[in-house]
Amino acid sequence: MAEASGVHEVRRNRLRDRCAASGSNGALISRPANVRYLAGSTPAGAVLLIGPTEDILLCPRTPLGAASDGRPDEQLRLTVLPTSGGDPAVAAAELARAAHIDCLAVEEHHLTVARHRAIGSVAPRLDLADLGFAVEQQRIVKDEEEIASLRIAAEITDQALGELLESILVGRTERHLALELERRLIDHGADGPAFPTSVATGPNSGRRGHRPTDRRVEEGDFLSVCVGADYRGYRCEIGRTFVIGTSPADWQIELYDLVFAAQRGAREALVPGAACRDVDRAARQILAAAGHGEGLAPLTGHGVGLEIDEDPQLTPVAMGKLDACVPVTVEPGVHLPGRGGVRIDDTLVVRQEADGGPELLTITTKELLAL
Amino acid sequence: MAEASGVHEVRRNRLRDRCAASGSNGALISRPANVRYLAGSTPAGAVLLIGPTEDILLCPRTPLGAASDGRPDEQLRLTVLPTSGGDPAVAAAELARAAHIDCLAVEEHHLTVARHRAIGSVAPRLDLADLGFAVEQQRIVKDEEEIASLRIAAEITDQALGELLESILVGRTERHLALELERRLIDHGADGPAFPTSVATGPNSGRRGHRPTDRRVEEGDFLSVCVGADYRGYRCEIGRTFVIGTSPADWQIELYDLVFAAQRGAREALVPGAACRDVDRAARQILAAAGHGEGLAPLTGHGVGLEIDEDPQLTPVAMGKLDACVPVTVEPGVHLPGRGGVRIDDTLVVRQEADGGPELLTITTKELLAL
Repeated sequence: MAEASGVHEVRRNRLRDRCAASGSNGALISRPANVRYLAGSTPAGAVLLIGPTEDILLCPRTPLGAASDGRPDEQLRLTVLPTSGGDPAVAAAELARAAHIDCLAVEEHHLTVARHRAIGSVAPRLDLADLGFAVEQQRIVKDEEEIASLRIAAEITDQALGELLESILVGRTERHLALELERRLIDHGADGPAFPTSVATGPNSGRRGHRPTDRRVEEGDFLSVCVGADYRGYRCEIGRTFVIGTSPADWQIELYDLVFAAQRGAREALVPGAACRDVDRAARQILAAAGHGEGLAPLTGHGVGLEIDEDPQLTPVAMGKLDACVPVTVEPGVHLPGRGGVRIDDTLVVRQEADGGPELLTITTKELLAL
Repeated sequence: MAEASGVHEVRRNRLRDRCAASGSNGALISRPANVRYLAGSTPAGAVLLIGPTEDILLCPRTPLGAASDGRPDEQLRLTVLPTSGGDPAVAAAELARAAHIDCLAVEEHHLTVARHRAIGSVAPRLDLADLGFAVEQQRIVKDEEEIASLRIAAEITDQALGELLESILVGRTERHLALELERRLIDHGADGPAFPTSVATGPNSGRRGHRPTDRRVEEGDFLSVCVGADYRGYRCEIGRTFVIGTSPADWQIELYDLVFAAQRGAREALVPGAACRDVDRAARQILAAAGHGEGLAPLTGHGVGLEIDEDPQLTPVAMGKLDACVPVTVEPGVHLPGRGGVRIDDTLVVRQEADGGPELLTITTKELLAL
């Protein structure tokens, strides 16, 4: 645990340096995933004040008094301060001067106008700057401990999905299958689902983000599933498409092979230094060449970590390049209105070729299974 | 359905009048529950532009093209406009001048600083004002259709809880009981849980908002459950405490009777015109007189509707009064560290005495059941 705490302190020091370089000697972190990244697991509503020398985690006071009382937390190496009510971000601004902060960078993409104004009015002599997405950028490349958590999240997800496939599916509703998958995630040690589980049957299959309905699985259906575990805050994602019954129809085999080829194309493009848009193009051009260019999802994949949808975005307009140790999804799909479709989705970690190339975290087979 | 659509139009007209009275001839609604209240069920990320004569629902374009294409929606009686990418709130600001809006009220408590700035930069000649909590205030008093949805949500919740009580509980974990309750909610027609289900056993019992752990139910435990269904967007809440085994201990009976008396006190105080703080006091003073004044939750109850935690707040510092047709929870509890505790939580609708007084929506018995 001491090592893990050190990790958070190192992250805060990096951010402190970055703030100093851009003229702020303090930062107020309010976006929950960013607070968690910099301070470890944190209570709902907590904000983190990064000062020139000291960091303070301000927590809403609960009736249970769970937070320690203004004392330094040895494990987190910061001071944990319960606030007496009201907005902890405002309480943080009140503390800023005492903490020798005169220019405070805030997360303008997360703070509401009303909170920003409240901060300005309790601390009128404090300069407020925009931190932008500095913490989100810091979060893109993961350390091996973070990747280990993602690996466990993926193992849990593979187990839950594998068990579902062994059960009878015909006649059950999308909603029930989704709930059962989420129960199995918990059974295998997940803290919860990483996002709302999607189960889509028949004409719904292949739709990205489909919300489960009361439609029942029928013989001959495509069944597409997208599910992921949250393990210690780290979230992964897997998507598979199956066919129900003894033998898939010709159009189903064709469509499956096409999406599989597109997904493989994008997976193979995952190398350090590759442009994000080139990874997207690797999948998109295969689908477009087969006449499915219209109606594709705007992205082929995205980063995962403390949030299920992080940078980088694998889209036709993405500007960045991939680095090693960046986990991403690769999830192309085709949906034919009225008929259904196919999505295949993996979580992988970008790795140097010398290290064996992209590391596949979600290892459930991608053969077209007939269930 | 025509009647239901009329409801949304009437709500928008009320808001339009209110904006006009405060000098804005347009409003941009971004908070999801407020968009839903004014425009009916809406896609994620949609914003609503209220103009002097016309209303436009701006939706992020999905690859599925689910939204109709810039055409007036007969059922919603507004124009549904998919946006071409980017923030629909910014697209709304670009439309404002064409819609004859020169002063636009925005939800400063919901819009981030970054979005507010982006709106200002695409429409520099548009005055931006603060709408404040105007829509939230409009949502406090419910119509009979909204109350009918809450009543169904409560029926579903009572059914799910009733079934759980008939099953064997000893040896099962808090997490599994919570998941089973959520599955049963869906079985009975809920769109989902209204909030994360809380199941607390033994020393955890009676803690408000306890997150289920792997602790197993044991003989002699208090078991407290807080659960609610979401039905068509409307969310209710019930909390009950049971004892596991044949006969409760004396301290358990005493504590239960005390919390029961406090909860009844607050329920009986629910009359139109009552001060919210007086309802809180009705419960709080009974618990304080018995020596439990320290460590109580900061509130005795809260409004429910399209969000699980709405106004009014039943707290010692609340300023408002109750109106008829306002649904609230009444949920006092006592938790004894290390031993456990009791919470009893109902959803009720404030009604005139001539109409029979407060309408109890969650009808599961409040006798102390030994399971």
